[in-house]
Amino acid sequence: LAISLRELSGHLGAQVHGDPSLQVHGIGTLHDAKPGEVSFFANPRYRRQLQTTRASVVILAADALSLCPVAALVVDHPYLGFARAAALFAPPKELPVGIHGTAWVSPEAVVHESACIGPQASVSARARIGRRALVGPGCVIGEDVVIGDDTRLVARVTLCQGVRLGERGLLHPGVVIGADGFGIANDAGVWVKVPQLGSVRIDDDVEIGANTTVDRGAIEDTVVEQGVKIDNQVQIGHNVHIGAHTAIAGCVAIAGSVRIGKRCAIGGAASIAGHLEIADDVYLTAASEVAKSISRQGIYSSGMPVQENQLWRKNIARFRHLDDLARRIKRLEDHCGVTQDQD
Amino acid sequence: LAISLRELSGHLGAQVHGDPSLQVHGIGTLHDAKPGEVSFFANPRYRRQLQTTRASVVILAADALSLCPVAALVVDHPYLGFARAAALFAPPKELPVGIHGTAWVSPEAVVHESACIGPQASVSARARIGRRALVGPGCVIGEDVVIGDDTRLVARVTLCQGVRLGERGLLHPGVVIGADGFGIANDAGVWVKVPQLGSVRIDDDVEIGANTTVDRGAIEDTVVEQGVKIDNQVQIGHNVHIGAHTAIAGCVAIAGSVRIGKRCAIGGAASIAGHLEIADDVYLTAASEVAKSISRQGIYSSGMPVQENQLWRKNIARFRHLDDLARRIKRLEDHCGVTQDQD
Amino acid sequence: LAISLRELSGHLGAQVHGDPSLQVHGIGTLHDAKPGEVSFFANPRYRRQLQTTRASVVILAADALSLCPVAALVVDHPYLGFARAAALFAPPKELPVGIHGTAWVSPEAVVHESACIGPQASVSARARIGRRALVGPGCVIGEDVVIGDDTRLVARVTLCQGVRLGERGLLHPGVVIGADGFGIANDAGVWVKVPQLGSVRIDDDVEIGANTTVDRGAIEDTVVEQGVKIDNQVQIGHNVHIGAHTAIAGCVAIAGSVRIGKRCAIGGAASIAGHLEIADDVYLTAASEVAKSISRQGIYSSGMPVQENQLWRKNIARFRHLDDLARRIKRLEDHCGVTQDQD
Repeated sequence: LAISLRELSGHLGAQVHGDPSLQVHGIGTLHDAKPGEVSFFANPRYRRQLQTTRASVVILAADALSLCPVAALVVDHPYLGFARAAALFAPPKELPVGIHGTAWVSPEAVVHESACIGPQASVSARARIGRRALVGPGCVIGEDVVIGDDTRLVARVTLCQGVRLGERGLLHPGVVIGADGFGIANDAGVWVKVPQLGSVRIDDDVEIGANTTVDRGAIEDTVVEQGVKIDNQVQIGHNVHIGAHTAIAGCVAIAGSVRIGKRCAIGGAASIAGHLEIADDVYLTAASEVAKSISRQGIYSSGMPVQENQLWRKNIARFRHLDDLARRIKRLEDHCGVTQDQD
Repeated sequence: LAISLRELSGHLGAQVHGDPSLQVHGIGTLHDAKPGEVSFFANPRYRRQLQTTRASVVILAADALSLCPVAALVVDHPYLGFARAAALFAPPKELPVGIHGTAWVSPEAVVHESACIGPQASVSARARIGRRALVGPGCVIGEDVVIGDDTRLVARVTLCQGVRLGERGLLHPGVVIGADGFGIANDAGVWVKVPQLGSVRIDDDVEIGANTTVDRGAIEDTVVEQGVKIDNQVQIGHNVHIGAHTAIAGCVAIAGSVRIGKRCAIGGAASIAGHLEIADDVYLTAASEVAKSISRQGIYSSGMPVQENQLWRKNIARFRHLDDLARRIKRLEDHCGVTQDQD
Repeated sequence: LAISLRELSGHLGAQVHGDPSLQVHGIGTLHDAKPGEVSFFANPRYRRQLQTTRASVVILAADALSLCPVAALVVDHPYLGFARAAALFAPPKELPVGIHGTAWVSPEAVVHESACIGPQASVSARARIGRRALVGPGCVIGEDVVIGDDTRLVARVTLCQGVRLGERGLLHPGVVIGADGFGIANDAGVWVKVPQLGSVRIDDDVEIGANTTVDRGAIEDTVVEQGVKIDNQVQIGHNVHIGAHTAIAGCVAIAGSVRIGKRCAIGGAASIAGHLEIADDVYLTAASEVAKSISRQGIYSSGMPVQENQLWRKNIARFRHLDDLARRIKRLEDHCGVTQDQD
C-alpha cells in the first residue's frame, strides 16, 4: 500500500504540513523509520528522536511542530492518529472458513458456516459460534458457550461451560474464562468447596490479553462490560463487575466481588482487594494496592519506587518504627510548646 | 430440586426461624434472590442488602437474626452453611466415560475403564489414570504421571513427566505442574542450567486454580499436602513444601525452597522470598511481602494502600529520606534533653 | 551411572578431599542424601545440615571444608559445581523423531527430518522447524514462525505469527510468545486498538518458564538476547529489549518499551514501568518497583517486608501523613535553632 499525505490526512482528520502529494508506504518508529515511512510523536521522552528522524512524515500535536525536521500531520491526539494510520498499513488477516480436519465439534454444537474452527480445537455440546468468529488452534470451548459474531480466539483459549462472549471480541492465547472462582469455607480446619454456580458474561468489543483469567461467579455472573481492554496475566476473581471502556494493564490482580466503574484505567501490577467499589473514571498508577472502596474519580497511587539497596535498607528499618517516630515528634512538640497545626 | 426448610436445616445443622415447610428451589445473593431462593449473610458489608432481601430464607449467624426480614436458618458459620446449601443445588456433573476419539493415549499408559480422557488430550507412556478421573479437553499428561481416583483436570492442564496427583483433586485450565524449577548457576557471566531432577507430589483433596504453576524440585520433590486450596495464577517454585489445609489466594508468588506450615492463609498478590520457613497457622494479608522466616502463628501484613496521587508523591518523597528524618528527631531529642523511652 | 571422585573432580575442576577412588551414583540434598550420593553446600542457611550430612561427598568452597564430615570436592563456586555434577546424573532425554500421527503440520511448513512434532500439536504455513527441535504435545506454531536447531518447546507453547526463536532454547508449558502488545488509544472515551505490526525475536540459549508471556512489538520487534533466563509467569510487554545473559525470576512484570541491559538479575515479583532504561549489571531485589530509568550498575531495592499486623497498621497510618511529620520536624528544628546538616 502506498498512500499520499493528502489521503492519509483525510483518514486521520489531520492538517498537513509539507507536500500533500508525498507518498508513504509503511510505519516506523522515530528512531528507525526510513524515508517513505510514517512515524508519530506522542511521548516527550522521544523528543530528541523526533529532531533527528528520517521518517517522511510525523504525526504529532501542534506544539511539537517546530521540532519536526520533516513533513507533519497535525492532530489533537497523536497516539490515536498513529493507531488509525497503523490500521491502514496492517496487513489484512485473511481468516480461513470452516472446520479444520483435526478439530472436534460436538454434533450438538451450532457453528455458523462463516466461522472458522482451527486445528486441534474442540467445541462441546450446545456451544454456539457466531458469524465470522474464529476459534483458533487448540482452543477448548465448553458446553453451552456462546461466541458472538466477529469474535476471535487467537489460539489455545479456554471457555468453560456456559460462558458468553459478545461481538468483535479478541482473546489472546492462554486466556481462561469461566474457571471456578476461589470459594472455600472453613469447617474446623478443613476447607469445603463453595460450588460456583454463576458464569461469565463478556460484552462487545472486549480484548483480553494472553494468559489472563476471568473466573465464573459464585451465584451471579462475573461481568465485563462493553469496550473493556485487558492486558496479559490479569486475574479477575468471581463476581467482579468491570464497567464499560475501562482499561486494565498487565499483571493486575482483582479479588472477588469487586465492582469497577466505567472508563477507569488500572496500571500494571496493581492489586485490588475483594468486595470493594471503585467509582467511574478512577485512574490507578502502576503497582497500586487498593484496600478500600474509592468513591470519587481521580488519580490514586501507592507503591514504593526503588532506591539504592543500602539506603532502602536504612529507610525500611526506620519504617518499622514509624509510629514510634511520630510519637517522639509529638513529645518534642509538647516539650517545646510548638503547636502542630497543619498549615 | 425443591426442598423444605426443615430438610435444608438438617443438611446444614441449622436452627429454623420461620415456617419449616416452606419450599426453596435455588440460591441467590441477598440483592438478587427471588422468592423461593435461599441466600446467606456472612459479610457485614451487605447488611443493608439483608434488610431488603426478597429471598425466602437467609442463612445467617444468630447475631444477625434481628435484621432479617424473612425466614432464617441460623448456623455458627454462615458461609460454610451456604457452601453446603449451594452443593445441594449445584447441578450434578455427569462425567462421560472412556477415551475420546480425538485423544491420544500411549499404548503403554494405564487408563482405568471408569476414567474419561477428553477431546484433543494426550497421555504419554506409563501414565496411570485412576478410577473416575477426568483428563479434560486439551490436557497433556507426561510420561510416568500418576493421577489418583476421582481427580479432575478440567481442561488444558499440563502435567510434566513423573508428577503424582492424589485423589479427589481439581485442577483448572492452564495449570502447569512439574515444569523445570528456575535453577541457574553463573559461570563467568554465562548462566548454566541446573538440571531439575525432582518431581512434584500433590496429595489428596487439593484444588489448583487456572494458570497456576508448580515447579518440579531440583533434587527432591516439590510437595503440596492434603487439602491445600490454591487460586489462579499462583507461582510455586521448586522444592517448596506447603502444609496441609493451607489456602493461597490469587497471584501469590512463592520462591524456591520455601516451607509453609499447615492451615496458613496467604492473601492475594503476596510474595514470599526463597529458602524461608513459615510456621503453622500464619495469616498473611493481601499483598504482603515475606523476606524472612516467620516462626510464630499470627497475622502479618505489609504493603501500602493507595492515597490520592498528589499526597502519595509527597509522602513517598519523604520516605526516601526516612532514615535522615529519624536521625533529625534524635538530634532534637538530644538538644532538648527529651528521653526517647517508648511508652 | 557410577563415577569415582577422581573422575567427578575432573568434570568440575575440583580438588578432592578424601578417597579419590570412592564411587558415587546420584545426587541428594545435604539433609536427605544417602551414602553413595553427592551433595553440595552453597547457602549458609544449611550449615547445620552440612555438619550432619550422610552424603558420601559434598561440593563446597574451601572455607566450608572444616565443617564437612565426609569427603569433599572443593571448588570456587559450589552451586555451579553442583549444576555440572547434576548434569552428569540427569537421565538423558531420548527425544523421539518425526511427526506424531495426531499432530497437524501445514503442507507449506518446513520441518527438519530430525525434529519432533508431538501429539496434538499444530504447525502453520511457512513455519520452519530446525534440526533436532522439539515441538511438544499441544503446541501451536503460527505462520512464518522460525524455530532454531535444538530448541525444545516442552508442551502447550504458543508461538504467534512470525516469531523467531534461536538455537538451544527451552520453552516450558503455557508460554505464549508474540501475542499482541497492549496498544490502545483513547478516542473520546472509547479505546481504539493500535495494530501490533512488529514481532518477537528470541536469540540463542534462552530459557523461558511456564506461563510466561512475551508480546510482539507495536512497530519493531520485541527482543530477548542470547543467554537470557526467564522464570515462570513473567510478563514482557511490547517493544521490550532484554540484554544478553540477564536473569529474570518469577512473576516479574515488565511494561512496554523497557530496555534492560546485559547481565542484570531481576528478583521475583518485581515490576518495571514502561519506557525506561536499565543499565548493564543492575541487580533488583525481589518485589522491587522501578518507576524511573536506572543508569548505573548496582543493587536496587524497594518493597516493604511484613510486620505483625497490628504494628503495620499503626505504621502505615503514620505513613499517610509522612510529609506532614517531616514538616513538623523542620518546625521543631527552626524553633530549637537546630541545623539539619546531614552528617
